[in-house]
Amino acid sequence: MSEYRIERDLLGTKEVPRDAYYGIQTMRAVENFPITGYPPHKELIIAFGYVKKAAAMANSEVGYLNKRIAEAIIKATDEIIAGKLHDQFIVDSIQGGAGTSFNMNANEVIANRAIEILGGKKGDYSVVSPNTHVNMAQSTNDSFPTAIHIAIFNLAKGLLEALYELKKSLHKKEKEFDDVIKMGRTHLQDAVPIRLGQEFGAYAKVIGRDIKRIGQSVQHLGEINMGATAVGTGLNAKPEYIKRVVEILAELTGHPLKNAENLVDATQNTDAYTEVSSSLKILAINISKIANDLRLMASGPKTGINEINLPPRQPGSSIMPGKVNPVLAEVINQISFQVIGNDHTISLASEAGQLELNVMEPVLVFNLLQSLSILQNGIKVFTKYLIDGITANVDHCEHLVEKSVGIVTAINPHVGYEVATQVAKEALETGRSIREICLERGLLTKEELDVILDVKEMTSPGIAGAKL
Amino acid sequence: MSEYRIERDLLGTKEVPRDAYYGIQTMRAVENFPITGYPPHKELIIAFGYVKKAAAMANSEVGYLNKRIAEAIIKATDEIIAGKLHDQFIVDSIQGGAGTSFNMNANEVIANRAIEILGGKKGDYSVVSPNTHVNMAQSTNDSFPTAIHIAIFNLAKGLLEALYELKKSLHKKEKEFDDVIKMGRTHLQDAVPIRLGQEFGAYAKVIGRDIKRIGQSVQHLGEINMGATAVGTGLNAKPEYIKRVVEILAELTGHPLKNAENLVDATQNTDAYTEVSSSLKILAINISKIANDLRLMASGPKTGINEINLPPRQPGSSIMPGKVNPVLAEVINQISFQVIGNDHTISLASEAGQLELNVMEPVLVFNLLQSLSILQNGIKVFTKYLIDGITANVDHCEHLVEKSVGIVTAINPHVGYEVATQVAKEALETGRSIREICLERGLLTKEELDVILDVKEMTSPGIAGAKL
Amino acid sequence: MSEYRIERDLLGTKEVPRDAYYGIQTMRAVENFPITGYPPHKELIIAFGYVKKAAAMANSEVGYLNKRIAEAIIKATDEIIAGKLHDQFIVDSIQGGAGTSFNMNANEVIANRAIEILGGKKGDYSVVSPNTHVNMAQSTNDSFPTAIHIAIFNLAKGLLEALYELKKSLHKKEKEFDDVIKMGRTHLQDAVPIRLGQEFGAYAKVIGRDIKRIGQSVQHLGEINMGATAVGTGLNAKPEYIKRVVEILAELTGHPLKNAENLVDATQNTDAYTEVSSSLKILAINISKIANDLRLMASGPKTGINEINLPPRQPGSSIMPGKVNPVLAEVINQISFQVIGNDHTISLASEAGQLELNVMEPVLVFNLLQSLSILQNGIKVFTKYLIDGITANVDHCEHLVEKSVGIVTAINPHVGYEVATQVAKEALETGRSIREICLERGLLTKEELDVILDVKEMTSPGIAGAKL
Amino acid sequence: MSEYRIERDLLGTKEVPRDAYYGIQTMRAVENFPITGYPPHKELIIAFGYVKKAAAMANSEVGYLNKRIAEAIIKATDEIIAGKLHDQFIVDSIQGGAGTSFNMNANEVIANRAIEILGGKKGDYSVVSPNTHVNMAQSTNDSFPTAIHIAIFNLAKGLLEALYELKKSLHKKEKEFDDVIKMGRTHLQDAVPIRLGQEFGAYAKVIGRDIKRIGQSVQHLGEINMGATAVGTGLNAKPEYIKRVVEILAELTGHPLKNAENLVDATQNTDAYTEVSSSLKILAINISKIANDLRLMASGPKTGINEINLPPRQPGSSIMPGKVNPVLAEVINQISFQVIGNDHTISLASEAGQLELNVMEPVLVFNLLQSLSILQNGIKVFTKYLIDGITANVDHCEHLVEKSVGIVTAINPHVGYEVATQVAKEALETGRSIREICLERGLLTKEELDVILDVKEMTSPGIAGAKL
Repeated sequence: MSEYRIERDLLGTKEVPRDAYYGIQTMRAVENFPITGYPPHKELIIAFGYVKKAAAMANSEVGYLNKRIAEAIIKATDEIIAGKLHDQFIVDSIQGGAGTSFNMNANEVIANRAIEILGGKKGDYSVVSPNTHVNMAQSTNDSFPTAIHIAIFNLAKGLLEALYELKKSLHKKEKEFDDVIKMGRTHLQDAVPIRLGQEFGAYAKVIGRDIKRIGQSVQHLGEINMGATAVGTGLNAKPEYIKRVVEILAELTGHPLKNAENLVDATQNTDAYTEVSSSLKILAINISKIANDLRLMASGPKTGINEINLPPRQPGSSIMPGKVNPVLAEVINQISFQVIGNDHTISLASEAGQLELNVMEPVLVFNLLQSLSILQNGIKVFTKYLIDGITANVDHCEHLVEKSVGIVTAINPHVGYEVATQVAKEALETGRSIREICLERGLLTKEELDVILDVKEMTSPGIAGAKL
Repeated sequence: MSEYRIERDLLGTKEVPRDAYYGIQTMRAVENFPITGYPPHKELIIAFGYVKKAAAMANSEVGYLNKRIAEAIIKATDEIIAGKLHDQFIVDSIQGGAGTSFNMNANEVIANRAIEILGGKKGDYSVVSPNTHVNMAQSTNDSFPTAIHIAIFNLAKGLLEALYELKKSLHKKEKEFDDVIKMGRTHLQDAVPIRLGQEFGAYAKVIGRDIKRIGQSVQHLGEINMGATAVGTGLNAKPEYIKRVVEILAELTGHPLKNAENLVDATQNTDAYTEVSSSLKILAINISKIANDLRLMASGPKTGINEINLPPRQPGSSIMPGKVNPVLAEVINQISFQVIGNDHTISLASEAGQLELNVMEPVLVFNLLQSLSILQNGIKVFTKYLIDGITANVDHCEHLVEKSVGIVTAINPHVGYEVATQVAKEALETGRSIREICLERGLLTKEELDVILDVKEMTSPGIAGAKL
Repeated sequence: MSEYRIERDLLGTKEVPRDAYYGIQTMRAVENFPITGYPPHKELIIAFGYVKKAAAMANSEVGYLNKRIAEAIIKATDEIIAGKLHDQFIVDSIQGGAGTSFNMNANEVIANRAIEILGGKKGDYSVVSPNTHVNMAQSTNDSFPTAIHIAIFNLAKGLLEALYELKKSLHKKEKEFDDVIKMGRTHLQDAVPIRLGQEFGAYAKVIGRDIKRIGQSVQHLGEINMGATAVGTGLNAKPEYIKRVVEILAELTGHPLKNAENLVDATQNTDAYTEVSSSLKILAINISKIANDLRLMASGPKTGINEINLPPRQPGSSIMPGKVNPVLAEVINQISFQVIGNDHTISLASEAGQLELNVMEPVLVFNLLQSLSILQNGIKVFTKYLIDGITANVDHCEHLVEKSVGIVTAINPHVGYEVATQVAKEALETGRSIREICLERGLLTKEELDVILDVKEMTSPGIAGAKL
Repeated sequence: MSEYRIERDLLGTKEVPRDAYYGIQTMRAVENFPITGYPPHKELIIAFGYVKKAAAMANSEVGYLNKRIAEAIIKATDEIIAGKLHDQFIVDSIQGGAGTSFNMNANEVIANRAIEILGGKKGDYSVVSPNTHVNMAQSTNDSFPTAIHIAIFNLAKGLLEALYELKKSLHKKEKEFDDVIKMGRTHLQDAVPIRLGQEFGAYAKVIGRDIKRIGQSVQHLGEINMGATAVGTGLNAKPEYIKRVVEILAELTGHPLKNAENLVDATQNTDAYTEVSSSLKILAINISKIANDLRLMASGPKTGINEINLPPRQPGSSIMPGKVNPVLAEVINQISFQVIGNDHTISLASEAGQLELNVMEPVLVFNLLQSLSILQNGIKVFTKYLIDGITANVDHCEHLVEKSVGIVTAINPHVGYEVATQVAKEALETGRSIREICLERGLLTKEELDVILDVKEMTSPGIAGAKL
């Protein structure tokens, strides 16, 4: 028996591996797009399962799809949702055709599995047709974006959970380090005292905004364009079906899906994706800054700033014995760079939409799903292996504050900026303390200075010694 | 009499033009930063006026600033708000020092004008000091970001108004072209019929989302960090002052300003800006796509698609007589590219924050204010000179639909995708009509085809002839 | 017998799968970096094989590495070069630690394979040590960049071959279409006649420059920093070794490798990579423009420009029967967007170098190798499945030229731009021909017009009718 | 007498200020493009002067342009080259129309000035016509790019000179700091010793490559497309003229200009610009890294790394007395971000070329000329005000090396990485010195350690104590 079966389409015939669930159009796509070697994201495959299931249910309900065929399709999609048949999704992540090859790969796999369920032979599309039945009342141009929305919803959920854990961990450190007085720095130059806990509190705060920002951007994906068919006009999709397919999909996935208000708009515009990507980019910028700060504060151990210690996770060097590097912070920087670059690709793809459709969606969704995944993956290890284990070098932090001259700022309200400048200058040039110089110059009394130069006091709003 | 006066600071003395309102620190900045040749944005200067006015009022209220000095400062800031003294703001838009030079330029101009008001001589800072009085209880690190927020609020208002006008104009075209049946295109290939009005409706819809998105992102700027002083700890800023300065500023500017919940966070993180820039970038992507569509639909007039006419605005060529180009659409593309590039610079600057401060704010704000301005400027002319004047070539649109074969899609639900494919293939190869082939093949009756191939019908959801 | 063996390092002990060739440091990296799920690029693994082989040979030659151990290491590396053991390279493409985990993964796999060859037991590093022997006189900071250079050389070779084929194919079309007169367009508006062959000639020309640009940028990778060890000072690397290891590597790989002039520079700076990436980005921009042009010229078939036909490669739609899309051009656009985004990530990573090292190299190289691969892959199918099969609609091209008015430009030198403008205006408004109007206005004679309005003539430099 | 004169074009009439040298088409452009408020770059205006002068000379030579008119045009262009009439160039830097408005602004100013020279009245284009005479045998599509090339040549010259000075200054520091032993750092963690001079040598080296890279990229601009006219076919440009205009232009400007091999290619492709921009982007990345390093090494003065001192240039804070910030390094970072963002805009513009032309050139050239200018401006002050004045804290550098444990690496070749790791671990945990632990463990003798742990020795290639 031959290893191949013959299938036929608009352009002719082609051999398909006899046991394959995919068919001729998948074969053509594999030949046309040997680009990245990366198959579709697992969450995208599952999302296609949901979309095709909901379409079969809705088409069956409104009386267009034969119940027996519908049931076989539903059974096949359930398997995909459960993680089966994923090795049959073999088209490349970057592909021409606006995702038609993803959609046809899904249609073919589901059709052949349904045929099998109904006792037919793979490739005998008279039993179940990939286009006529599985794709009924659909186009790539509505089913693919709908699948993307669902995949993003699922991945964003995981990312948001990871961010919540990060925020919680940062808040724990905020409390733990609330009493650690250290030097604040601006321009990498000694500024005025701050508490280490305040720094972690600021990190927690910005991550909190990221959670909110990402959460909101994802909500906008609730509007899906199922029923738009080819160009958003809904040709070949009955209004009852359009209503029902979305209701069913919302129920199946548990996501707050609803019909897009304007299907023509929803089919051609991709701003919902660029908005999610932008929110991820902003997160990337923020966590890269945090990672940089941690690397800087942990620099040393002997010749750097060395205010904090990061948990050692792996030997840092193949040549330098004993070296340990901030690898979990570094991987966050790199993930951030990837996400920022991905956002760029996404923007380019989004801008390239033309008229009724954006055919660049495959590369767009490849990058967007990757960004969601690697952020989630990275933030989980960052929290668990790095943030949770940070310790402070309390004495060293205090020592640095003591030897700095930045505390001179506190005497401003009492002597004026110009006089304070002279004091600071002398302190820097001579190495003598601010206190000593103020006393010598008779600017302030010992008692006043005790109050004014209290470094803990300096880390809260107010003018120390204001009541004096 | 000498043309110069001598001023002194931490680093020594310097000649300042005798009549200048700016002082030594501005002079140093001008020497250090001869970069772009662009002075600060007008709205930023005005915003500094508001910030310094509010600080003087609050400091006076809480009893720290001498009333007479406060009044002189307020008078000077009122002049700046009214558009005076702007030629005294001479530091470059791109500058090191986190905006200290912007702030000191403002402090010096205001101090010298206040000195003048009080009858003193410019440069005699014993009367009014730029640092001790004008900058009282402030740092660059809180007053500069606060000024930025106000400037963005003002510019965003203008942009949003311009977008509303654009949306209105697009809606007008949506109605005007509601009856114009034309060919829908995906992949630049003939797809299925659509109405020209639907296309404009989709444009209006996405612009509507941009309005919402930008509006929301700007709202987040309501949180300002006045009172943070150097690193967010509020050193030298009394809590009463912190509360009052923001209340006064809200009142003066009419913007919904409030104290940031966490001043340390608000002083070091710039995500509020990246969020606004991201929303502008998404707008840029969307309008660039619209501009591209319009250029494509107006291509020709003789050898292109020629479905619509753009109003002629200027001769298009220095060599080709009679040529007219879509210049207003092209300038929108270019503005979009600028805004997307600016967003990139803004992201780089935002990521470069370190510890308690982001010293890259000058380049960040230069780009952000530019993006806001050029989008506003461009969208106004785009609406007025292009969108408002678009006309449709109704007959040509219809003619194109008639000669296409994309309408074959409507027979799918009746004969199945596979049979329809054969019909389409024959039509493309022979040039014969879908109707003719369907009849010949006995697939559908003449009566059925009358209903099914009604192109107007195809532009709304549903299966034509479903009831047959 | 246990499934695991116990290994030990600076941080303690860890279980390693008994049969694994990798060891404890690889295990730690896998735990720390579960980011993308993508293992190292195949070419990078092979390149590590070469680097470690050359180091063992050089260390053995200069008398530092025991010959028996050296031979075992060399045998192990030969297997890797031959494509074996690649499944043992399991650290993630995005990782912290500047590539130390890639390097240690290689060191461990090679050490364990060498131990096995020498009859020892995996994990018994007293026989062959990953650090002391395999990594002898090396650091991650010289061996990893060297491996990157080699991997790029190999991938660039394939890309350049693909580009040569593309250029050849474009030149063939240049000749094939040399006689096809068509309308030239600027601003998507009718301009003046051009030959289709000239357009393909321009494409070939720019691809030729890309070949040159990429080739030159890759040549700069010839300078490698083997011997730099940790920070470029060459600590623990004997000068004789430094010289020999590079000579051997050049010989083994066949690439023009030589010692970097300044090892400190070569260890910290990554401009050689950004330069390659920039040349790839420029290629991406250029081929995206070509892809756009082809999609535009092939638009239709009935309602677009339809000057050329692209070979049909797959059914274009899951809903629209008979539709065929320019999928090979679209995939080129998407590859281009990916490469441009990758360049962005690479730039961010490059800028993030600090002091003696750029620890962001893993993400940098991940993107750079991906760009090289997907460009090569994409261009091959683009050439073979698209360019090679393009045909021209000669009659339609001519028909469009005939109905346009752009040919009016040719009368400029004879009547002046201002008069020509009046002619063009009348032609556009009335639909009458340029010739007719010129005759009627008595501007030129029939004989003159025969010469001046010869469209073929217009596609070469010169003033038609200049001699008249 | 009216303040206005009336001019006429294809679209009708318009009032032009009576004394203006520009005309109706400039007026239309000003109305259409009120975008950035930035007029064309001074160098672009001058370059247009050269282009129009050369065209007039060549047209006159080949006998097409009346000598008297030619002379008047030449005289007018000489004035522009000399810096006169620049206030008449009023069209916005960002404009639709592919630069037609720049070109027509130039044509009109030159025509009116020539008319004046010939005793005519401004606006009387029967004397000298902007299109027929000044623009003779030209199109915007060849004269504008040619002007861009010349402007880039001029600006690049200044940038390269600034870079040479920077490189010289870095080399001076390389020598000056050749004896300063300091700690090398990778991952911001203590690595092994290096000399401060080596670090500056590395900076000089990479700047040297930037000089070469930029120089080469600019050379490719030598090919200009004068004579291409509208679409590269050379319609209306005689071959003799095409040859001569380029020769004359090369002579006038002193740049190595020559005719592009393929005018169709040269008219539609903009890779010569993206290549220059890429080389500027790489420079930006490299100098941003250098600026970051300097800021890091100068961090402190009391609580940072404090290995070097940057010259104080301005008071660093409006609130913190005595603070001095690395403002010249910060401005370099910001310029770099601007240039990288500009490169992004340039890439977008370049990719948007369509068929025979890239209409996005105005925004492209705006960004490219800006990048060239701000880099030149910034690097000059960076060299003069920062690099030249850097001093080293020699004792502190040595002190840091002494207290670090990174020197343990030097014992690797003698005791093996694994044993050295145990030594390093003990040193870090106990604070005892490497020497002490080695002696105690009997690993090496006092004499061996004297040789092996010589830190100066460690900064050159080789194995210390190899001969022992």
